Amino acid sequence: MSSESIRTAVVGASGYSGQELLRLLLMHPVVDLAAVTSRQEAGRPLADVFPRIRGAAKIAGLEFIEPDIDAIAATGARCAFLALPHGVAYEFAAGLLEKGIRVIDLSADFRLNDPAVYAEFYGGDHPSPELMREAVYGLPEFRADEIREARLVASPGCYPTSILVPLLPLVKAGLVEANSIAVSSVSGASGAGKKADASLLFAEVNESVRAYGAPKHRHLSEIEQELSLAAGKPVRISFVPHLMPVTAGICTTIFCETTGNETLSGAIGETYAAAYGDAPFVRVLGENRFPDTKHVTGTNHVDIGWVEDRRTGRLILFSVEDNLGKGASSQAIQSFNLMFGLPETTGLLNY
Amino acid sequence: MSSESIRTAVVGASGYSGQELLRLLLMHPVVDLAAVTSRQEAGRPLADVFPRIRGAAKIAGLEFIEPDIDAIAATGARCAFLALPHGVAYEFAAGLLEKGIRVIDLSADFRLNDPAVYAEFYGGDHPSPELMREAVYGLPEFRADEIREARLVASPGCYPTSILVPLLPLVKAGLVEANSIAVSSVSGASGAGKKADASLLFAEVNESVRAYGAPKHRHLSEIEQELSLAAGKPVRISFVPHLMPVTAGICTTIFCETTGNETLSGAIGETYAAAYGDAPFVRVLGENRFPDTKHVTGTNHVDIGWVEDRRTGRLILFSVEDNLGKGASSQAIQSFNLMFGLPETTGLLNY
Amino acid sequence: MSSESIRTAVVGASGYSGQELLRLLLMHPVVDLAAVTSRQEAGRPLADVFPRIRGAAKIAGLEFIEPDIDAIAATGARCAFLALPHGVAYEFAAGLLEKGIRVIDLSADFRLNDPAVYAEFYGGDHPSPELMREAVYGLPEFRADEIREARLVASPGCYPTSILVPLLPLVKAGLVEANSIAVSSVSGASGAGKKADASLLFAEVNESVRAYGAPKHRHLSEIEQELSLAAGKPVRISFVPHLMPVTAGICTTIFCETTGNETLSGAIGETYAAAYGDAPFVRVLGENRFPDTKHVTGTNHVDIGWVEDRRTGRLILFSVEDNLGKGASSQAIQSFNLMFGLPETTGLLNY
Amino acid sequence: MSSESIRTAVVGASGYSGQELLRLLLMHPVVDLAAVTSRQEAGRPLADVFPRIRGAAKIAGLEFIEPDIDAIAATGARCAFLALPHGVAYEFAAGLLEKGIRVIDLSADFRLNDPAVYAEFYGGDHPSPELMREAVYGLPEFRADEIREARLVASPGCYPTSILVPLLPLVKAGLVEANSIAVSSVSGASGAGKKADASLLFAEVNESVRAYGAPKHRHLSEIEQELSLAAGKPVRISFVPHLMPVTAGICTTIFCETTGNETLSGAIGETYAAAYGDAPFVRVLGENRFPDTKHVTGTNHVDIGWVEDRRTGRLILFSVEDNLGKGASSQAIQSFNLMFGLPETTGLLNY
Repeated sequence: MSSESIRTAVVGASGYSGQELLRLLLMHPVVDLAAVTSRQEAGRPLADVFPRIRGAAKIAGLEFIEPDIDAIAATGARCAFLALPHGVAYEFAAGLLEKGIRVIDLSADFRLNDPAVYAEFYGGDHPSPELMREAVYGLPEFRADEIREARLVASPGCYPTSILVPLLPLVKAGLVEANSIAVSSVSGASGAGKKADASLLFAEVNESVRAYGAPKHRHLSEIEQELSLAAGKPVRISFVPHLMPVTAGICTTIFCETTGNETLSGAIGETYAAAYGDAPFVRVLGENRFPDTKHVTGTNHVDIGWVEDRRTGRLILFSVEDNLGKGASSQAIQSFNLMFGLPETTGLLNY
Repeated sequence: MSSESIRTAVVGASGYSGQELLRLLLMHPVVDLAAVTSRQEAGRPLADVFPRIRGAAKIAGLEFIEPDIDAIAATGARCAFLALPHGVAYEFAAGLLEKGIRVIDLSADFRLNDPAVYAEFYGGDHPSPELMREAVYGLPEFRADEIREARLVASPGCYPTSILVPLLPLVKAGLVEANSIAVSSVSGASGAGKKADASLLFAEVNESVRAYGAPKHRHLSEIEQELSLAAGKPVRISFVPHLMPVTAGICTTIFCETTGNETLSGAIGETYAAAYGDAPFVRVLGENRFPDTKHVTGTNHVDIGWVEDRRTGRLILFSVEDNLGKGASSQAIQSFNLMFGLPETTGLLNY
Repeated sequence: MSSESIRTAVVGASGYSGQELLRLLLMHPVVDLAAVTSRQEAGRPLADVFPRIRGAAKIAGLEFIEPDIDAIAATGARCAFLALPHGVAYEFAAGLLEKGIRVIDLSADFRLNDPAVYAEFYGGDHPSPELMREAVYGLPEFRADEIREARLVASPGCYPTSILVPLLPLVKAGLVEANSIAVSSVSGASGAGKKADASLLFAEVNESVRAYGAPKHRHLSEIEQELSLAAGKPVRISFVPHLMPVTAGICTTIFCETTGNETLSGAIGETYAAAYGDAPFVRVLGENRFPDTKHVTGTNHVDIGWVEDRRTGRLILFSVEDNLGKGASSQAIQSFNLMFGLPETTGLLNY
Repeated sequence: MSSESIRTAVVGASGYSGQELLRLLLMHPVVDLAAVTSRQEAGRPLADVFPRIRGAAKIAGLEFIEPDIDAIAATGARCAFLALPHGVAYEFAAGLLEKGIRVIDLSADFRLNDPAVYAEFYGGDHPSPELMREAVYGLPEFRADEIREARLVASPGCYPTSILVPLLPLVKAGLVEANSIAVSSVSGASGAGKKADASLLFAEVNESVRAYGAPKHRHLSEIEQELSLAAGKPVRISFVPHLMPVTAGICTTIFCETTGNETLSGAIGETYAAAYGDAPFVRVLGENRFPDTKHVTGTNHVDIGWVEDRRTGRLILFSVEDNLGKGASSQAIQSFNLMFGLPETTGLLNY
């Protein structure tokens, strides 16, 4: 690692997001792993817990440590990724920020800016409304400037990313009726996390598809927050997530009504071109093109397509992403790159 | 086979629907297999082509024969299931009916009653508008009396069954705004048929989910036809099918608006109870229950659940079925049972 | 249920074997479910725990009860299937036998006849060497007469069934060198049971294959016991199980050396024909035929094929079965049929 | 691309090996894509055929061209990877070598050095025995020096790599009885190639495992060739490949007898340490460790473990690899790195 490397900590690395973060950071040319924490794996070499990364030079000799703020600070880390459960992250965020360490939080603890909405969707009062307000919602395609300056980035949820990327430009442009939006998403099983739960066993998820969590999945709160900001008015949408038998990937289908009567073809494509022409990770496939999760797994890409359903007047949008990639870990690294003045694509040009 | 057995032909048995028909007919106590046809497999013993049914007494000595109307008639068949491609079935249907053989057609050739809609969705003029009008749309939960008397039953498509079963009672009762309906379905790969197509290879479908066929999938025509009849006015809906990596199963999610303002809980459950209280194959799981395809694969069941999304005023319906079961072959046998005066569940009480 | 029905209990029905037993017993024409027990599900209706069987007439009103010997006896049950963990079954077996209830045990508690081997493979002394000796190893193709008279049947393990069915006739006939046997089996994830174990999550098993448990998997003990009996001398073999991403199915490949130099083709086929010509559930596909798990899942079939590797002098055998079917639950019902004087195939002719 | 980049052609890029080669070459820091050929896709932009790589800078403007030797030479390519079917590669190899272009052939055309064995396993006379003799078998762990100097590298097959890597050091050291070897391998469906074959459809491969190709799979010829060289005597082994429902990955289990009586533990580990201590892509997990395909997919790693079965005197070896990675495309790039004086790991340190 060169003298210009950035010492970085991963806090809570035993779940799927943490594991994917580690995997990607191994291949990041500027990151130096200062500390990797896991309460349950403390003391074990990383490669014993994650056989996939065995032998990587960057983790030679590295063991999981207990998640302790002072210990992390003592490693000289300048940045910490938090891959902790919701409700646990904020304590570490606050403590690490006090030590001068910039924080990228993959949990939901700082994604909302309204304490009342937080209480409604997550229960209880938020312990730190100030940090909640300070945190930048880490969707780099829309908040790059704020992310560059942020001390605390709240990296978006997996479903929200797949929904907001296709919708935000159109809602901002006033092309779709925001309150007409209904979303059906299907997600791979890694999205449910690495927890010992019999309903997530292979024999339960295989040859099975099922909706769950409707009508008020927690991710709805951040989706509506961002759509409302874009629309300039309160937006409420319908959202149904489904669990399907793939390891990774989210495929999102969005029904919405357009605001005008004229044929929209040109408008949709032009709006996307303006929004994403320079975005390295959003690939606009075009009208009547259907994106496929298998073309984005393991990457930081979101692929977008759409159809205009002239018989009903609806516009139908499609997006795919890797729920652990652009939906979690690689998107967090995209923010990291911005925060540390690196090219946005550093370490992320995977195919 | 007793003297009361019903000699039956399966025409076009080499695809997935035909294969599933055969499998189910082996376990049907009254069916005697008179003829099983396949142009490509003619002359081969059934068990060589379908190793799963090897050894079954009912197919001992039985070989595939060429699909020939006279040959089928010569076997003394009283009923023929047609599992042929769209556009091929109608010739056999016409010929077999002339011979006095009742026909259950699993293709789309007779599902529509308006030649103009047929031409719009399938291309070209329908060769037999008279038979088109005569054919009964074989959804036994709604057409049992007509099916009992029918010479020609057009068994519904897989997506249509999964969409019509949850919707028809509510549309008939005027509880939902028919033109507000938007449907997202995910289907297993057997729905695409047993054709040598590289895009359906295991390595293409596995770890992949993708929309296709929107906004004007052919099945839309029969869905809208039946919804329009139920609503008493023309209905147009949005429909997006998806392909996912399971062998069998369709999971359908339906967004719609209700017609009234009052809380609907009671109304939905009561309407379903009235419609399906005596229906042996429709299982109404209830509000806030999410059906799972793995509980219906290999059966003739449709499971239904729903949520009321009070934040947006929408009603969201869920259904699951086996696309080769209630979506094709076992539903066709359900019609057969009605046509031959048998209990509707004969040979179909699988779990 | 007719007056001739046989009242039957399923003890420990919440795991995959118990669930499959219930499913199959629903379709068994003579079985009346007297009691279904589960410590963790006691008090819940069966259909709530197993949505797949919802609506089945045979379980109407039936709830899980605590596993209590007196309570089971009070139901008038004449037979009990035990689908309990190893080490737990023997207590129930002893108690139920005392009440005059015949027992079919799906656990390993009574499969061995040598207490020393039990201690070596399962640890600790067997609590009831007498019952151990009395129990009949429930492989109906080889022990039908003893099973008919048995009070206590020890139904074989999944791997052992897939290995013994192809091997026993050849070992008995002296055609293969018993100590040359090396076996590689791959099993679906349901074989590991329905336990909340993070290593069995969908995202861990999917896109993964791995050996485990070698060289001394517990099932080796019963395999070697039965091979030794057949060979008339002590036999030790090598056995490697693997976990693969299917829900159900075992595919076993057996390498062995033949005892003679002559071409064996005729001998292998003839020996199988003699052994299995009248066996309704063993399908001998023939030389150079490769059985496929997908043709036996959900059934009680074992399919067998083989190749003669003349370049090395080895014989290679192949078998497939459903690990929950012939490998567990349907095989137990096959014993039940024999014990109660029914045709061996009653309720088991599934395809 | 810097002036030091190496212009490289991929000939026959529409199959799975070619597709994986392209994907990996995109991330290779020194490779410049000079030409990518495909008879069936000629004229189409690469990203249209492979949506996964859409947007990659290295393929901007690049279209598939016809596979023409002069056209390839005209691009200034210094090296060509051939991902063509067996029997087609040799013509291109000969023509390209004449143009001074070094060739890495992923087909089987040059893997054997004995024309008689070629004729026995592939049929017909080899058209170029001279090139057959000149070609270097591209297993970099054993032939690095020859590969560095080679004009023509015959990159090994997928099964052979997974079998030779664990066996060669032990056979060379005389620790195992070479003629006692019996191998069972399970492979993902991508190994069968991207051909429209109904037996490889998702619905045929999913929930299915089956042996095939035994006892004389074509890959046996190169396995035995290399084992014979290592043993210093003719070696014949038994080999059974299986197809399983994963996209990528081979899991190989090898039964063999040891040559001595003493406990071997130390010897196996020491021999592997000596052979692979400096090999960046072979990870020796150790005794009683079971490698898992999911930890090597997408990489150039082979992971190895073993157990000593003292009850039978056998040694059982385990290996896993990605059949498209170390089993094909990334291994070919490993040879490329050696041929062009690059660090062996260039562009291949994926996790």
